[in-house]
Amino acid sequence: MVTEKTTEKINVAILGATGYTGEEAIRILLNHPHVEMARLFSLEFIGARVWEAFPRFSKRLNLVIEKFEEGSSLEGCDAVIACLPHKVSMAIVAPILQQGIKVIDLSADFRFASPDTYAGVYGVEHQYPHLLEQVVYGLPELNREKLKGCSLVAVPGCYPTGAILGAAPLVTKRLVRPYGIVIDAKSGVSGAGRAPSSRCHFPECNESVSAYGIGKHRHQPEIEEQLSRLYGEEVKVTFAPHLVPMNRGILSTIYLDPDGDVSLDKVRAVYEEMYRDEPFVTVLPEGQYPVTSDVTLTNSCHIGITKTPEGKIVVTSAIDNLRKGASGQAVQCLNVVFGFDETEGLIQA
Amino acid sequence: MVTEKTTEKINVAILGATGYTGEEAIRILLNHPHVEMARLFSLEFIGARVWEAFPRFSKRLNLVIEKFEEGSSLEGCDAVIACLPHKVSMAIVAPILQQGIKVIDLSADFRFASPDTYAGVYGVEHQYPHLLEQVVYGLPELNREKLKGCSLVAVPGCYPTGAILGAAPLVTKRLVRPYGIVIDAKSGVSGAGRAPSSRCHFPECNESVSAYGIGKHRHQPEIEEQLSRLYGEEVKVTFAPHLVPMNRGILSTIYLDPDGDVSLDKVRAVYEEMYRDEPFVTVLPEGQYPVTSDVTLTNSCHIGITKTPEGKIVVTSAIDNLRKGASGQAVQCLNVVFGFDETEGLIQA
Amino acid sequence: MVTEKTTEKINVAILGATGYTGEEAIRILLNHPHVEMARLFSLEFIGARVWEAFPRFSKRLNLVIEKFEEGSSLEGCDAVIACLPHKVSMAIVAPILQQGIKVIDLSADFRFASPDTYAGVYGVEHQYPHLLEQVVYGLPELNREKLKGCSLVAVPGCYPTGAILGAAPLVTKRLVRPYGIVIDAKSGVSGAGRAPSSRCHFPECNESVSAYGIGKHRHQPEIEEQLSRLYGEEVKVTFAPHLVPMNRGILSTIYLDPDGDVSLDKVRAVYEEMYRDEPFVTVLPEGQYPVTSDVTLTNSCHIGITKTPEGKIVVTSAIDNLRKGASGQAVQCLNVVFGFDETEGLIQA
Amino acid sequence: MVTEKTTEKINVAILGATGYTGEEAIRILLNHPHVEMARLFSLEFIGARVWEAFPRFSKRLNLVIEKFEEGSSLEGCDAVIACLPHKVSMAIVAPILQQGIKVIDLSADFRFASPDTYAGVYGVEHQYPHLLEQVVYGLPELNREKLKGCSLVAVPGCYPTGAILGAAPLVTKRLVRPYGIVIDAKSGVSGAGRAPSSRCHFPECNESVSAYGIGKHRHQPEIEEQLSRLYGEEVKVTFAPHLVPMNRGILSTIYLDPDGDVSLDKVRAVYEEMYRDEPFVTVLPEGQYPVTSDVTLTNSCHIGITKTPEGKIVVTSAIDNLRKGASGQAVQCLNVVFGFDETEGLIQA
Repeated sequence: MVTEKTTEKINVAILGATGYTGEEAIRILLNHPHVEMARLFSLEFIGARVWEAFPRFSKRLNLVIEKFEEGSSLEGCDAVIACLPHKVSMAIVAPILQQGIKVIDLSADFRFASPDTYAGVYGVEHQYPHLLEQVVYGLPELNREKLKGCSLVAVPGCYPTGAILGAAPLVTKRLVRPYGIVIDAKSGVSGAGRAPSSRCHFPECNESVSAYGIGKHRHQPEIEEQLSRLYGEEVKVTFAPHLVPMNRGILSTIYLDPDGDVSLDKVRAVYEEMYRDEPFVTVLPEGQYPVTSDVTLTNSCHIGITKTPEGKIVVTSAIDNLRKGASGQAVQCLNVVFGFDETEGLIQA
Repeated sequence: MVTEKTTEKINVAILGATGYTGEEAIRILLNHPHVEMARLFSLEFIGARVWEAFPRFSKRLNLVIEKFEEGSSLEGCDAVIACLPHKVSMAIVAPILQQGIKVIDLSADFRFASPDTYAGVYGVEHQYPHLLEQVVYGLPELNREKLKGCSLVAVPGCYPTGAILGAAPLVTKRLVRPYGIVIDAKSGVSGAGRAPSSRCHFPECNESVSAYGIGKHRHQPEIEEQLSRLYGEEVKVTFAPHLVPMNRGILSTIYLDPDGDVSLDKVRAVYEEMYRDEPFVTVLPEGQYPVTSDVTLTNSCHIGITKTPEGKIVVTSAIDNLRKGASGQAVQCLNVVFGFDETEGLIQA
Repeated sequence: MVTEKTTEKINVAILGATGYTGEEAIRILLNHPHVEMARLFSLEFIGARVWEAFPRFSKRLNLVIEKFEEGSSLEGCDAVIACLPHKVSMAIVAPILQQGIKVIDLSADFRFASPDTYAGVYGVEHQYPHLLEQVVYGLPELNREKLKGCSLVAVPGCYPTGAILGAAPLVTKRLVRPYGIVIDAKSGVSGAGRAPSSRCHFPECNESVSAYGIGKHRHQPEIEEQLSRLYGEEVKVTFAPHLVPMNRGILSTIYLDPDGDVSLDKVRAVYEEMYRDEPFVTVLPEGQYPVTSDVTLTNSCHIGITKTPEGKIVVTSAIDNLRKGASGQAVQCLNVVFGFDETEGLIQA
Repeated sequence: MVTEKTTEKINVAILGATGYTGEEAIRILLNHPHVEMARLFSLEFIGARVWEAFPRFSKRLNLVIEKFEEGSSLEGCDAVIACLPHKVSMAIVAPILQQGIKVIDLSADFRFASPDTYAGVYGVEHQYPHLLEQVVYGLPELNREKLKGCSLVAVPGCYPTGAILGAAPLVTKRLVRPYGIVIDAKSGVSGAGRAPSSRCHFPECNESVSAYGIGKHRHQPEIEEQLSRLYGEEVKVTFAPHLVPMNRGILSTIYLDPDGDVSLDKVRAVYEEMYRDEPFVTVLPEGQYPVTSDVTLTNSCHIGITKTPEGKIVVTSAIDNLRKGASGQAVQCLNVVFGFDETEGLIQA
């Protein structure tokens, strides 16, 4: 019985513990009353204590970073949080599932319902298409019931989390047209990961804003698949990501065309209905705009709603890309899967 | 004869010399071979040497900052660059024009063709409606001929400069629909001016992005008036400004719907045709996106063009809000008005 | 018996809840298992829900912000965290103490042993000199025993915390000369508080570093008093604070002259001895330098030690000015005063 | 005759044109009335137009980036600005000098008077020790006369420029002790160069300050050699560099012990005497501190002077590390070498 777990601790291993999302998962789980951080795996800093790699963990966590190899045993672990690259994750995760260990996967490998879509977007054949039938897309606000007790969770991408939470009420209620939706997203630099690059070299991206990958970003089909599911028919969006000189945060500005006569009051009502009881989603009072720094280091999503004189509905949503956009959401899913209080470890403000 | 001026210097006074646009005008004009900075006026630092207020001008400029009062004489001045607040500027500028001094005005007071529009947007009656008949909207790329020798120039707002330059070729050629245009603009903080405020207090806006004034910003009607003029019929836009944690720069991401079948090649051709000979506008090679830091402290505008699979044309344009978006453009206008080479003082890269 | 408290919750009120240190105290206490946030007082946002003032507290805390007036009752409160300005705090705090409520005071009003020193540094007579006899300087690493069960705690200033923790082992062991000590401190902008100012206006302090108040800062005598106490004779320092374009963090670079022949090994040994069992102080491995972002949003202090070829001992220490430098330390003191585990609410990494 | 050059243009080639200092040299020289940018060499972007590598040069400069190889001819070039790495530069520069072309070298290869010192600091034998006899250390404020017409200039390092200009008057006049000098320097990230690294990855160094290489930095012996020359005996300093989250700028805080009774007035007098006629050095009024952003993108050095109650003299100096600390100073040297007005191309404020 899942609920019996709430009185004890589960053992959790992190794969890819030294990337940004892995490190973030550790930071969150240190405060989780029902989680014992049992094992840390990475391809870097192997053999080092975690605080040697990350001084922030000094006097907080003393685990040794291990190399995960074929045949590595995870005996005693109840769950794995996999913070691995796309395309790499599926082959590592599949055998772990077979051992009966629950997997919260942050890669894109299990986010699409169809292996063909995956192959089209990521350019490789899916090696474990049968797993796509059992995986749950880990957005608890939409899929809470399915997540309970499930074995494999595909944590949404950072951009999709902000975009889907921002658009879901309007799309679900079919109050907007399913085409012509524009999503202009502004992300902090940690979204690009820990590997140094010219583009993320401090003097290159500091004091600067630019767009990238307009119409080509792999999160666009992910957003479209989820919105289409909510709408009941195909939804198309124009997605334009931008890089902003800050460490964390995504602001998604979503432009939608009302389908028929839809008042701002009506719009607000569907948002408040959908999110009233959600512990991590706040619909801001009228006239207020979300500010990414208000959600930094939290698992929260703040949403602002406007209707312009010329008739567009403009929704802005703010999340922390490494928390609600990645590792915070992973822990939220973990909580739902194991029947813990959904906010355990995540009540930071 | 205007062209004779090119061998000598004109005397220029700056009103509002201690705001960001005033200071920026000084910085530019220090490098202008045909301009003698003659007088600096402000309501702050009165009586101080300009380098006492701004140490950056030490050993570069020794002028005393003066208070401009009714009846202050500008004898000997050929031109005034007015960096004054909206609503305040018109009453100060009108008598100066009467003295035969040319005025480059950075406020919004002379940007609309109709006094009614002005009253609607800025909430006060226009006191000098006859001046609206002679003023030229100071975007040299569109109005170069009219600017030559004119007496009063209304320098465009920072957001309108980026948005109009970005959309002009498509709108002028009527290749896009005149409605449904979305302009998502990201601005550095200097756009909010020098006065301290809670919103621009460093720890409040640093490491954060947010939208503001969606559908209500005063630059929206300015953009619409200019695009309508280019299109020949009313154009409506949805304008959403955002504050980004950097000092300078505006990136405008413009989403347009092609009117009929318009290929990316066709789009690129009209941009290249319109801007090929423009010294300050660059259309980037295909696949390249403008980066605001590439135009920082320059008078340049960089433009990138994309067409997405779902059919939107997405144009991004980058400017420095204090240069091409304000004081650089003012000097460019000054150059055109007086017949100097248009790039004088503005060849920084 | 203090230890009985550990099984229940205490009620805590915050005075000055809307400044940076007050807001930070709320953020920390939301995660404290033994604290019930009972009352919030401020002169701003009176009557508002705390999440109306700070959206980050949406769905986390629903308290109304109250005005604290003479005669305001704090019945039921066990402790007050006073986040009030210097000079203002003492008159508010004194009557609260008389009600038997413990006070953790973040102002400078109770930091000096002598009312004369206070008057000399802060320019006003101390109104409650008798309280200076019972107050404990709230640096648990130095004063843990005295803090247990005490009634009034003076939380150290942000700069003194970093400087004293950095220098204490060498000074206590008299391994360095008591004069000629240089403390070059670099602080994030939140140290200047929430009130907007020209100096902290984003475009003014962003992308810039500068010194201020060299030899005149009020934290210098505070540092000297504490180091003198540790040394047993008067210690003099040269203190130079600097403003750095980041939100949080203080790096103190401390230059000391060894008194006699003192090897780096010897220096490391005294640091390790003093801080080995401290939950919040880490002495980094040889050759490693503290990085302020490693301690951001934690109550930790990281210390690095170097000895240069020409014979100086150079110690660098990093803290978060709003956590270990203010509200985190206040909660640490609260924990010690009430006999809670010292790390409760403070185990973030 | 050198002075005849002032009426015409010289041809300048840049080696290492695509690093930060090379790019900066191009930006400066674009505004230089007596310089024709003739050739650009690099190991990257070979064959590309300079604006393809750096969009900022679009419509400003159309040169092709060339590969410099043994035997490459620089015929027609009057001067080379060499922006090459340490150890690499000397072997490339020596043959160019033999062709009678003047070389302004930004590497460290010619900065020490003695080949032994060079070998000790940089760990390799000097291959052209005879050139060390003819090279001039390119700090025009100290070596103006020697620079005139010289063939080889060693442009000082960025840290040494700020430190030496800050300390020179006191050291030259022997008003301070030649030992115990502490130089705490804070640098922007561009000082680390263009190559991506973990340390300069945006999310790693943004919102953070740290020290590095205390007592081991290669600029320390460079500073000591120059200060010793000025003092007439050996001067020792403790040099501690710090990385600050900004693109450009170095603030050097210099702590010195007066030798005998030296009043602040006396100190100010020697600074004013030494720098009064210097076009690029400003001694700020009493009580004012230099701010790095005031010198950003200029060739200026701002200096503030304080004397503390406990008797230290504290000097702070601010420069732009890529301008006065590198390429601006290189152009200043070029101007002196060729007899141009020393401020040509450098009058930005």
